[in-house]
Amino acid sequence: MSRIKVMVNGMPGNMAANVARHVLNDGRFELIPFSLTGPEITDREQIVDSIKIRLIHPGEREDALKELKKKEGRFISVDYTHPSAVNTNAQFLCDNILPFVMGTTGGDRKKLEEAVLSSATCAVIAPNMAKQIVGFQAMMEYAAKTFPDLFSGYTLSVKESHQKGKADTSGTARAIIGYFNRLGIPFTEQQIVMERDPEKQKSRWGIPEEYLKGHGWHTYTLVSEDKTVRFEFTHNVNGRDIYARGTLDAIVFLNSRILEGAKGKVFSMIDVLRGTGN
Amino acid sequence: MSRIKVMVNGMPGNMAANVARHVLNDGRFELIPFSLTGPEITDREQIVDSIKIRLIHPGEREDALKELKKKEGRFISVDYTHPSAVNTNAQFLCDNILPFVMGTTGGDRKKLEEAVLSSATCAVIAPNMAKQIVGFQAMMEYAAKTFPDLFSGYTLSVKESHQKGKADTSGTARAIIGYFNRLGIPFTEQQIVMERDPEKQKSRWGIPEEYLKGHGWHTYTLVSEDKTVRFEFTHNVNGRDIYARGTLDAIVFLNSRILEGAKGKVFSMIDVLRGTGN
Repeated sequence: MSRIKVMVNGMPGNMAANVARHVLNDGRFELIPFSLTGPEITDREQIVDSIKIRLIHPGEREDALKELKKKEGRFISVDYTHPSAVNTNAQFLCDNILPFVMGTTGGDRKKLEEAVLSSATCAVIAPNMAKQIVGFQAMMEYAAKTFPDLFSGYTLSVKESHQKGKADTSGTARAIIGYFNRLGIPFTEQQIVMERDPEKQKSRWGIPEEYLKGHGWHTYTLVSEDKTVRFEFTHNVNGRDIYARGTLDAIVFLNSRILEGAKGKVFSMIDVLRGTGN
Repeated sequence: MSRIKVMVNGMPGNMAANVARHVLNDGRFELIPFSLTGPEITDREQIVDSIKIRLIHPGEREDALKELKKKEGRFISVDYTHPSAVNTNAQFLCDNILPFVMGTTGGDRKKLEEAVLSSATCAVIAPNMAKQIVGFQAMMEYAAKTFPDLFSGYTLSVKESHQKGKADTSGTARAIIGYFNRLGIPFTEQQIVMERDPEKQKSRWGIPEEYLKGHGWHTYTLVSEDKTVRFEFTHNVNGRDIYARGTLDAIVFLNSRILEGAKGKVFSMIDVLRGTGN
């Protein structure tokens, strides 16, 4: 099988560089050494594992992409840019019939989807690329749909820890709480116990020093009314590698769909998990 | 709404007595003060919350049940007896068109089901009456079916603690391990870490003294290949109240099915959880 060509946009951002590194070190892929970048970036290039990546600024991307298409043929773009760039990037890729994996959150999600649906290309759009966490959410959603009020009478507590910079509560925690609500437990987002203090993360939570700047730890605890039953669900992620690995899976999945002739189609991470046709 | 009449068989056994106590203290039910018991029992009666329950020995049950049916009209039987009695009890109840909830494990389960299917009555048959744990198993089964190999590359460890008398590994743990296998993790029953030492249960696990003689604690831990991701699922049950509460839910469910005219039907705890028609 020939290698899948991949361009990772959003460098010099951390997540884009991380995904590029994973692409470089995986025999299934060939990294195209170009990356679309934002107007505020002044660098002309970025080094990833000793490979020089040319950063393409907004003004030059039309020409650059035409060149690349001619030279590389078919390739898949990955977007880890910025919420403010989500829609313009997606429109640009759609207009140029360039299939893509959108890992950037934010922007107008409805407009994003519509751009792909009315295009001649296809995309995986996933606000969360961590396959196993998306799978866990799907399990919870299944329970909420199938067994409403299963945990009626139970008390929920939720605690989560993320790096100091993260101001809002975890989106994953909010989604999971919604499922618990449907399972019969009243609970609001305001009741989430958030930890953002690196000192406590280290001493009380036991989060390794090297991940204080990038982690997502979540624990949901359910206790029955008479206190005799206790359920606990934990998912602790250190660093960003789980998202990079999920992105690679999304690329492979999208490639298979393209080979089947998919056009004007949006896929989710759930589709990737189901692995239809893989 | 009139109260649902319930006879709990298997006294003086702990589980039967516990369910009888829950039935007595719940306004939805009326406890029939009789209980089928085993041939080895010499007592003639059992006191539950100051209520005298007549124990009916195998030799007298034909006549006693005829009397009860005449006097009480429609009622639901609950069976918490002994694996060796499961099939004869079920056949007796089927022959006498007495709907029942079978909470006893063991016996010939296929024969048990067939007895009900070919009868003019119906039953809830559930080897595990703990609704929330059955729900958790169903979630895991859904994931195993829908997202095979989701946790491929992860390492699993399983630990469980039960009262000293329990010789075999937990049936729940074995079932859950089967789902993890389908999710891509090789793991055998022999790898389960079993705790049966009351001293360690108290000091290391923190299991309350009063539950050393009756508890089921389970923890499943999944760690990604690169150790950056950790999932943990725990369900800790102290005592037997969760099973009693699940039994009451099964009675209410079965009563609704009977009112709809169900005959020759077997229901599972999953049906109870779905709550069809409730």
